[in-house]
Amino acid sequence: MMVEGRNRIIIENVKPEIDCGRFPIKRVIGEKIVVEADVFADSHDVLSCVLLYRNENDSRWIEVPMEPLVNDRWRGEFIVTDLGRYHYTIQAWIDRFQTWRRDLTKKVKGRQNVSVDLLAGSKLIEEASQRASSADAEKLQAWAKGLRSSQGLSEKTQLALDEDLATLIAKYPDSRFSTAYDKVLIVLVDRQKARFSTWYEMFPRSCAPESGRYGTFRNCEERLPYIAEMGFDVLYLPPLHPIGRSHRKGKNNVPIAGSEDPGSPWAIGSDEGGHKAVHPQLGTLEDFRQLVAKARDYDIEIAIDLAFQCSPDHPYVKDHPEWFRWRPDGTLQYAENPPKRYEDIYPFDFETDQWMDLWQELKNIVLFWIDQGVRIFRVDNPHTKPFSFWEWLINEVKKDYPDLIFLSEAFTRPKVMYYLAKLGFTQSYTYYAWRNTKWELTQYFTELTQTEVCDYFRPNLWPNTPDILTEYLQTGGRPAFMVRLVLAATMGANYGIYGPTFELCENHPRELGSEEYLNSEKYEIRYWDIKRPDSLKDFIARVNRIRRENPALQSDWSLRFYPVDNDQLICYSKHTEDLSNIILVVVNLDPHHTHGGWVELLLSTLGLDPQLPYQVHDLLSDDRYIWYGPKNFVELNPHIAPAYIFRLRRRIRTERDFDYFM
Amino acid sequence: MMVEGRNRIIIENVKPEIDCGRFPIKRVIGEKIVVEADVFADSHDVLSCVLLYRNENDSRWIEVPMEPLVNDRWRGEFIVTDLGRYHYTIQAWIDRFQTWRRDLTKKVKGRQNVSVDLLAGSKLIEEASQRASSADAEKLQAWAKGLRSSQGLSEKTQLALDEDLATLIAKYPDSRFSTAYDKVLIVLVDRQKARFSTWYEMFPRSCAPESGRYGTFRNCEERLPYIAEMGFDVLYLPPLHPIGRSHRKGKNNVPIAGSEDPGSPWAIGSDEGGHKAVHPQLGTLEDFRQLVAKARDYDIEIAIDLAFQCSPDHPYVKDHPEWFRWRPDGTLQYAENPPKRYEDIYPFDFETDQWMDLWQELKNIVLFWIDQGVRIFRVDNPHTKPFSFWEWLINEVKKDYPDLIFLSEAFTRPKVMYYLAKLGFTQSYTYYAWRNTKWELTQYFTELTQTEVCDYFRPNLWPNTPDILTEYLQTGGRPAFMVRLVLAATMGANYGIYGPTFELCENHPRELGSEEYLNSEKYEIRYWDIKRPDSLKDFIARVNRIRRENPALQSDWSLRFYPVDNDQLICYSKHTEDLSNIILVVVNLDPHHTHGGWVELLLSTLGLDPQLPYQVHDLLSDDRYIWYGPKNFVELNPHIAPAYIFRLRRRIRTERDFDYFM
Repeated sequence: MMVEGRNRIIIENVKPEIDCGRFPIKRVIGEKIVVEADVFADSHDVLSCVLLYRNENDSRWIEVPMEPLVNDRWRGEFIVTDLGRYHYTIQAWIDRFQTWRRDLTKKVKGRQNVSVDLLAGSKLIEEASQRASSADAEKLQAWAKGLRSSQGLSEKTQLALDEDLATLIAKYPDSRFSTAYDKVLIVLVDRQKARFSTWYEMFPRSCAPESGRYGTFRNCEERLPYIAEMGFDVLYLPPLHPIGRSHRKGKNNVPIAGSEDPGSPWAIGSDEGGHKAVHPQLGTLEDFRQLVAKARDYDIEIAIDLAFQCSPDHPYVKDHPEWFRWRPDGTLQYAENPPKRYEDIYPFDFETDQWMDLWQELKNIVLFWIDQGVRIFRVDNPHTKPFSFWEWLINEVKKDYPDLIFLSEAFTRPKVMYYLAKLGFTQSYTYYAWRNTKWELTQYFTELTQTEVCDYFRPNLWPNTPDILTEYLQTGGRPAFMVRLVLAATMGANYGIYGPTFELCENHPRELGSEEYLNSEKYEIRYWDIKRPDSLKDFIARVNRIRRENPALQSDWSLRFYPVDNDQLICYSKHTEDLSNIILVVVNLDPHHTHGGWVELLLSTLGLDPQLPYQVHDLLSDDRYIWYGPKNFVELNPHIAPAYIFRLRRRIRTERDFDYFM
Repeated sequence: MMVEGRNRIIIENVKPEIDCGRFPIKRVIGEKIVVEADVFADSHDVLSCVLLYRNENDSRWIEVPMEPLVNDRWRGEFIVTDLGRYHYTIQAWIDRFQTWRRDLTKKVKGRQNVSVDLLAGSKLIEEASQRASSADAEKLQAWAKGLRSSQGLSEKTQLALDEDLATLIAKYPDSRFSTAYDKVLIVLVDRQKARFSTWYEMFPRSCAPESGRYGTFRNCEERLPYIAEMGFDVLYLPPLHPIGRSHRKGKNNVPIAGSEDPGSPWAIGSDEGGHKAVHPQLGTLEDFRQLVAKARDYDIEIAIDLAFQCSPDHPYVKDHPEWFRWRPDGTLQYAENPPKRYEDIYPFDFETDQWMDLWQELKNIVLFWIDQGVRIFRVDNPHTKPFSFWEWLINEVKKDYPDLIFLSEAFTRPKVMYYLAKLGFTQSYTYYAWRNTKWELTQYFTELTQTEVCDYFRPNLWPNTPDILTEYLQTGGRPAFMVRLVLAATMGANYGIYGPTFELCENHPRELGSEEYLNSEKYEIRYWDIKRPDSLKDFIARVNRIRRENPALQSDWSLRFYPVDNDQLICYSKHTEDLSNIILVVVNLDPHHTHGGWVELLLSTLGLDPQLPYQVHDLLSDDRYIWYGPKNFVELNPHIAPAYIFRLRRRIRTERDFDYFM
């Protein structure tokens, strides 16, 4: 283990680095990666340290100098400009010339005789000249000669400390014993939508313009202007495939379906086809492609569901019995979570000996939908399939399609959710739906945005889904929906709602204590009167416009919470790096009663001068207030408006603004 | 990258693990290693998880089951019983039988038909029998047959859920797709003294029984009873080697020595020999070996100094000029930290092309002193030699002598100090000497004992050294010495003093603003009247006896601080794992004035019942107090006693203790 003993530099504690470099960090195009590390050597020599990075496809590293902070910590940064993967690592060496120059300066100040030091310097410069280009080599040799010449000591010292010499020689470091960090770390670069997206979930079959009809892809097209007006840019559709007949569930999930019941879209596959087919009543594949194209005209992307499971009637069951688990009595193993049974759904057996074929076929499904124009996938229950499968699948398809976005629908234990994000999911559902109190929200979103988690887990906040009608929404009326919308839309750069139930404030559970909707669209076709006057459509449109117009809300890194002396009031801010856009949100979490309290800001974080007043401009109501100092009073009546979304404006008019001041 | 896709388990976030497993954790013989990890799989299967460990020299792993805590966290533990290195890692697999058993239980409770499940179970048991020893295989086959038999369902279910079956089958897990953690981690096991040691530093040449004589090893022997009575178990001697003449420093470090000046012991080497010789005036090598042996009779170990540097007169300079740095004028490069110069010391040039020879020779020096009976080395300025050298040296010699202890004397930047500990130093000097306020002490010792640092860095606390006479000691009089002694001896299981200056409260600096002693022993021979009546000898003896008698003080892991409503009073506790020994320390940090305040304990940490009184027994004064509840008042007059070292006694006599109670 006697390696090169003259490598004297240690590089450690590199950030960001996920699990010893096992996983990439995530960024979007145009974002900056700030890299820090502890870099030090024995003794007191001066070090040089560089950050190296490259696009995975480039063979050449780009070098950026790192700057020392305090306590042996160094920092450098670079910006990612292309989709795909970047590599980064660190290199450092003893800077002999700078060490010599620093010591010489001290000795000169201490009035010591430096004649021998000048000779040593001359030698260093001479050596550097041998590494230099010929033009620079000549210059350096001249310098070296100057230090050996018969001039006076003070002239030679001046020559030795010349800034130009230091700059020139820095180009030719002696990297014989330079130390490279022992890992190459990876950045996964996604497109901007990975960081900032506004989702709308909708059942196509409930989109018909009148009650009693089976909605189609054409009807979805007609709904696009409505969705676009509200400001959504992703339209996510539950599974579109033929629905099985065997063990089909009836309305409200009763075990036996009536002959007219349409079945759950998640019971995928019938003799009309499987995961690469569309349910005939919705239209044709051609219709689907047209919907994708039309949506694009509205700046909306269609996201589809990847639910890797089969109804008993799926063609795979006949064609690939080896992909399923068989019971000792010769029947197929349906999905179960004892004592619950899902007889209409067969999971794949990922422990089959033919797992490689199964993986390939599932990849083919993804490629098929990519061919239809889909670039965003919402993945159903990824935590019930092996992690290694997802890591392989996502990385395989993103090699050719780095613009793909995968949203993980894993509502399960925290470490499982985080692991799915680490291995490659672009965005993830969260526990947001069940975080209602100030303490819960503050604790959870501090973890998501202010810890290492933010380097790999991109939260996507949903106040409701077809499976989740929370007790808060069930009991809080229309103000509850407004509260949950504002929180989701401002705490999360990525958020979504399941409509039209959401904007219509649908809040009846199947039964008390259940989070299932009464008459859920999962099991029947619903007709929604989207023009109802009490719809939250305009409120949602306003909130989403605020998101589009305020870059502070388009990422999560800057989220900071502030104390309010009333537990029903929550206050937080987001800002851009240059503080040109600062949003301050105050929400009354109680959907029933008016609450007031004193908000206490940290002015330095927001770049505010404690001596000057500032303006807060409520972008919801367009009201403006003048605030002063860190503590200000707010009051919110949930029946009028349960939230403020303030834009902070630092500059306030004073008499100095008049032409004739002074 | 299509690895085995059926490995479904993830093992991550393993603790303890230093820098991705790059460095070992440190323990002493008899200590427990508690290992935790996040272990999880997709879906809902039951997992089995084991901790594997072995002594480095054993080929066979020992397996210990890990238990699930909450949130996918698992824990297991083992005890190290031998010096040297242990390996540990983790393995986990899907426990198919337990999964099946759990689901069966739920289905039975849900009154579902389980006949197919029983067949599936029978198959699982059958498979297990093929992995079993022949006797167990027979039993398992009988069980499998039972589940397939024509008995009633309820009998078969009872058979299936039999605890004996579960216990038996657990011996033969299906580990086909078991997952091994991808690292093998290492424990470096030292002897107990690495964790608990009491050091005394002394200049042998100042040990003569009368003024004006050069102290010898024989004089040191005569001093042993005195040192043993005070309760020290390591006697550390500054360098013992011949002292150079060239550029010898005079009294109080004046640049030119008088002819009678003895020189600094750190200017090592003369024509009388180098690092493998002893200074003739101290005695012979034989005398030294006798001192080592005599010390052992008093349970004292002799520690020597490893100062890898040379005086200009060292034989190495002539014999190995290639190990030093030469200046352009043909002279040798002396040590310097511009503008400071140390012309009496030549550092080795670790960047020499002959670095391998140099390393070998330095290792030979260590082996030479091992041959003289030395097992503890205090290493002078390790941070001025390459890290890779120390890692190699310490690991090389500890292969044959795993009982060696190396104390790192690096007073430098924190990351450099920590890195030296990571790479192998057994104990380390700290910033303790300069941490005087409650905030400083609390913050620093919380970092040292309650973070990952405690797994590799063993602090050794010194209130003074020959280089460090702090302003606190200079200005605080005798109480300051008592304060700093009690803090060092109770916050640090390893501590030491530089005497007799310490017990004699020597506190005159060379000049105002300096931490150097006036008339420092580094440059002259001193005579000390160790029998002076104001000596702290008895106080030190008492404190060290308290350390020996109370195991709570013999390690640092349990250190906890408590609030006191007076910033001059600090309060903290240490306890044994079983709470059979609890020490509570209160110190008045102000050496001038009496201070009182309310101490607020966390009773649950100390296993105290908030409803019951408890006794605190001051082991310094032998006074006892009855306390009640978390808040109690204390007062300390530094001129009488600046500290309490309480032993907490949980049980207090009540009327129930009388025979005739009830």
